Amino acid sequence: MALPYFYINDIVADTLTLDEDTSKHVVQVLRKKVGDDILLTDGKGTKAIATITDDNRKRCAVHLGSREREEEPQPRVCIAISLIKNASRFEWFLEKATEIGVREIIPLLCERTEKEKFRHDRLNNILISAMLQSQQCWLPVLQNPADFGAVLKWGGYDHQFIGHCLPEERRSLTQLSKDLQGSSIVYIGPEGDFTKEEIEAALQHNVTAVMLGDTRLRTETAGIVAAILLRCR
Amino acid sequence: MALPYFYINDIVADTLTLDEDTSKHVVQVLRKKVGDDILLTDGKGTKAIATITDDNRKRCAVHLGSREREEEPQPRVCIAISLIKNASRFEWFLEKATEIGVREIIPLLCERTEKEKFRHDRLNNILISAMLQSQQCWLPVLQNPADFGAVLKWGGYDHQFIGHCLPEERRSLTQLSKDLQGSSIVYIGPEGDFTKEEIEAALQHNVTAVMLGDTRLRTETAGIVAAILLRCR
Repeated sequence: MALPYFYINDIVADTLTLDEDTSKHVVQVLRKKVGDDILLTDGKGTKAIATITDDNRKRCAVHLGSREREEEPQPRVCIAISLIKNASRFEWFLEKATEIGVREIIPLLCERTEKEKFRHDRLNNILISAMLQSQQCWLPVLQNPADFGAVLKWGGYDHQFIGHCLPEERRSLTQLSKDLQGSSIVYIGPEGDFTKEEIEAALQHNVTAVMLGDTRLRTETAGIVAAILLRCR
Repeated sequence: MALPYFYINDIVADTLTLDEDTSKHVVQVLRKKVGDDILLTDGKGTKAIATITDDNRKRCAVHLGSREREEEPQPRVCIAISLIKNASRFEWFLEKATEIGVREIIPLLCERTEKEKFRHDRLNNILISAMLQSQQCWLPVLQNPADFGAVLKWGGYDHQFIGHCLPEERRSLTQLSKDLQGSSIVYIGPEGDFTKEEIEAALQHNVTAVMLGDTRLRTETAGIVAAILLRCR
């Protein structure tokens, strides 16, 4: 039986106190006692076995034992994706992107984005759950929403792609991803697609226009197709 | 502006009456009148422009004009996937598989499947909505749930794969899919995975054991990863 697996922001010290939610889960839900072991990750590649030293159900204390370090998953993939009106579809995207091992997610504000509230804490918790559920120890970095034009200038990835549906020249991401080396970012537009001007701006920043298969996809589906094509290559 | 797009079981005759739900949508929601055009598909490759001849909101009648035929999407992909406890996760899988262009879906009853009610009508309506939404005219065939052992004997696909998490020999579906010709079926197990005996039975039916990337995936995510790897190649 695998040890129950939890997230903690920082595992530098040798002894630490779990937050109230985690304490409750460990002590009250799982009925763990002093001397029992759990597994912790900091979401930055470290896993540590922790032994309970105080089974207080609000402030459970643990002593950290052996640690293990995992390298960052390769290839590094970032999905920069427009916010969408339907929050549960966006949350679904976050869960699946995490399972697939995407490293960074940038919520985009495009010209046709129908802006919605963005609750970073709530959405980050979805990433944490999905990371733990899939037994990973790297938490995707979730940025705050940013203007598409600004994100184009951020850089940091070897390859840049933009998925759109206009009848302009586009290459197949399937074909391109086959021989790709290094990290990549894909831009996915809102339900109404990127505007011509946005695509033009992307091309001027050396972003390659791509299509994602031969069917018309919803925003969140396009994000997942791109993530899989770039991660599983 | 694209014509509103609807599904109808059969478009053989030149005049026909829409069912009550569709009539209501066309006449009451979209306020279409006699003489207005809509687009119909039978989900078997045919699209037809239909002109309203009676805007009755329960029995809207139309006359079929020009028809267009699209070939079945290639490559043909079937996902045979265990039912899962959480119905909304299974429904999500159906929607995404349709968007991606999967041709057949077989709900599997495996040894560790936690059986749930299966409402064919409700689930088929999800497929229809997703087909229309993604502007396709081929509706995936949704089978009724069947025992894994029985489905292994059905045949009908050029290549057969089984995704599992046991530490047995497996090949990478990404690598295999690169040079694949022809149709394929992938078997995806329940949350608790296939049993050793089920995998053994599959291997005896010339099914190739595969892994889907380097992370641990939920059942419905594994189904989508397999669908994308086999459809977008």
